[in-house]
Amino acid sequence: MPADRVERLAELIVRVGANVQPGQVVSVDCEPGREEAARAIATAAYRHGARFVDVDHFDPWLKRIRIEHAAAETLDWVPPWYGDRALQLGETRAAVIALNGTVAPTLYDDLDPALVARDRLPSLKEYAKLVNARTVNWCVAPCPTPAWAELAYPELEPAEALEALWQAVEHVCRLDEDDPAAAWAERLSQLGDATAKLNARRFDALHFEGPGTDLTVGLLPSSRWESGTTETVDGIVHLANLPTEETYTAPDPERVDGVVRASMPFFAADVVVRGLELRFEGGRVTELHAETGAEALRGELATDDGACRLGEVALVDGAGRVGSLGTVFYETLLDENAASHLAFGNAYEESVAPEELPRLNTSDIHTDFMIGSDEVAVTGLTAAGERVPVLRRGDWQL
Amino acid sequence: MPADRVERLAELIVRVGANVQPGQVVSVDCEPGREEAARAIATAAYRHGARFVDVDHFDPWLKRIRIEHAAAETLDWVPPWYGDRALQLGETRAAVIALNGTVAPTLYDDLDPALVARDRLPSLKEYAKLVNARTVNWCVAPCPTPAWAELAYPELEPAEALEALWQAVEHVCRLDEDDPAAAWAERLSQLGDATAKLNARRFDALHFEGPGTDLTVGLLPSSRWESGTTETVDGIVHLANLPTEETYTAPDPERVDGVVRASMPFFAADVVVRGLELRFEGGRVTELHAETGAEALRGELATDDGACRLGEVALVDGAGRVGSLGTVFYETLLDENAASHLAFGNAYEESVAPEELPRLNTSDIHTDFMIGSDEVAVTGLTAAGERVPVLRRGDWQL
Repeated sequence: MPADRVERLAELIVRVGANVQPGQVVSVDCEPGREEAARAIATAAYRHGARFVDVDHFDPWLKRIRIEHAAAETLDWVPPWYGDRALQLGETRAAVIALNGTVAPTLYDDLDPALVARDRLPSLKEYAKLVNARTVNWCVAPCPTPAWAELAYPELEPAEALEALWQAVEHVCRLDEDDPAAAWAERLSQLGDATAKLNARRFDALHFEGPGTDLTVGLLPSSRWESGTTETVDGIVHLANLPTEETYTAPDPERVDGVVRASMPFFAADVVVRGLELRFEGGRVTELHAETGAEALRGELATDDGACRLGEVALVDGAGRVGSLGTVFYETLLDENAASHLAFGNAYEESVAPEELPRLNTSDIHTDFMIGSDEVAVTGLTAAGERVPVLRRGDWQL
Repeated sequence: MPADRVERLAELIVRVGANVQPGQVVSVDCEPGREEAARAIATAAYRHGARFVDVDHFDPWLKRIRIEHAAAETLDWVPPWYGDRALQLGETRAAVIALNGTVAPTLYDDLDPALVARDRLPSLKEYAKLVNARTVNWCVAPCPTPAWAELAYPELEPAEALEALWQAVEHVCRLDEDDPAAAWAERLSQLGDATAKLNARRFDALHFEGPGTDLTVGLLPSSRWESGTTETVDGIVHLANLPTEETYTAPDPERVDGVVRASMPFFAADVVVRGLELRFEGGRVTELHAETGAEALRGELATDDGACRLGEVALVDGAGRVGSLGTVFYETLLDENAASHLAFGNAYEESVAPEELPRLNTSDIHTDFMIGSDEVAVTGLTAAGERVPVLRRGDWQL
């Protein structure tokens, strides 16, 4: 990885993404091949006054070894100190940075998907608690790897693919601007406008219509649309996803009905799901077909009661920088910002008023899948039965 | 690293070293460049029934970044979850494996030694508690790296040096025997004989005499010599150091007097100490000279009250496999098995009777340094004033 590119990305993640504060502990997730990026983030964070940078390594090859050789009934066991560490990050009001982009996309492909689905590491249910408690200023950001580049650009030679991925990441992170922070401020203002208009409408449901899709997603009375920055309980404003092009809220997990076709492939339980088609009835998935990855996704949706219901609905306009590239990155962080999407599993507590928290979906999983495209129309349904165009060919209609 | 060599070493560490039991959690310390060895240990451990292998990565380059950029007054701060993890390993009765051998021997050489000494990671004071509580079956074993090979064999080309180091590690670990486990059983029996004879004598002190050395090391009334295997509170027999050629006990931290010259270089606070000469009075170091590393060692000995007193005295005969190679490995795990040695800092609680525990030295550090050679005579002093030859030119005299 070119050092100056890594440093610029690290600086953006530390300053604009997580917004690391002097004196903070900073947790950084790292997989093999991203050691230099983790060190660049540590350098930027210490320069900005961090107290301690705790890089948390996760090795997917070790996970494979476990799935191959450990007793099947032990595969869902997680050392209790993993969760304790996560909770302590919240108690100490840490900054939490995760670097995304696969380092080994086909590593589990020859293993039994049911076993792969049983070992959910490095996911931890405690992280959802931190996010909902808003005790950490967190940022998930992309960091190119050769393996990810080959997955996203299979038609290119490895070195060209890595260069293409770096350019794409720099473009969608607005690192190709003279002042990336100012470019983000401008885009976040646009997203904020759309979000405010959605909130003013107080829709009862959204209707998605397109090829293979005729889905109504009910909203809760207090469902609140959000976009851009998030604020911790201590008032630290951070960009939880870098990049972010979406405005999102929590649906009513009991009122999702109809059929929907995923508009892009995505990962579920570390396996690529292609050609997904679903039927929802009363909020639950009742039919599931896919060209690849169906079994892995079924395993994921069997995790708990909330895994087969929705925890998020998000709208993405056509002005964002991800969708216009026309690339499938096989990385939710980027792909979910290319198109409107839904997520199975856990909802964000911030999305509704406190009194409606009991109605939110809860789960140990949160798996996004894209359903939007220029061919999918999004219409708002008011409680009075009015139909209001929201997105047409990627353009806001509000 | 050649895969079959790594696998043989991993198998020895898991079976003969830590003696991993079915159902156990296994902690493995890993530094950059040893990922393959950690995976080989995980494979061997899972095959042998381990419940979970938790590889704990430590990156010395991150430590360097911290020392360079973090505020000096924060450098001794350790995230509380590090110690919590260690204590939970004890509570869950885990196996604990550490792989030794530097991955970056000169990494801190241009930094302020006082700052380097302040950041004591990856050392944790909680590990000493685990060892003394005998709740984990642990094993520290060597694992070659290119950087370590160049340090130990500076006269060889890198590839030759790595090959030489592998051969040396295989020799001292008895992996060049058809049945390494049987070879270890035989050597441990020899060490056990010498240990039993030392315990039968109940010496009041040991006297070391040689070039630059005239040192009397007092022993406590219940100081018990130990060697070879250790047993956990649950009866798991393990080889805490692989290789091990020593018999050791805890000295009286108040009764160490005279002068001593280190017979080999060693690491203190990540810096090489060469040509060390010390004076002890009443158990404390009162003079310290060294050709290199004096400042780093002084920082280490200022860690706490017990750091400048002795926690261990160990005798090594000439029949071991390390000393006969004549190589300075710049790695305490091997070098301490080449020659009789002392250690600054914390003592092992097992070394004395429970009623004498208050007299043992305690410290957050435990730093070994070699003082023995063929030219250093070791004589036992009885309470009645009798002088009994113990080691002459590396041969037991008991």
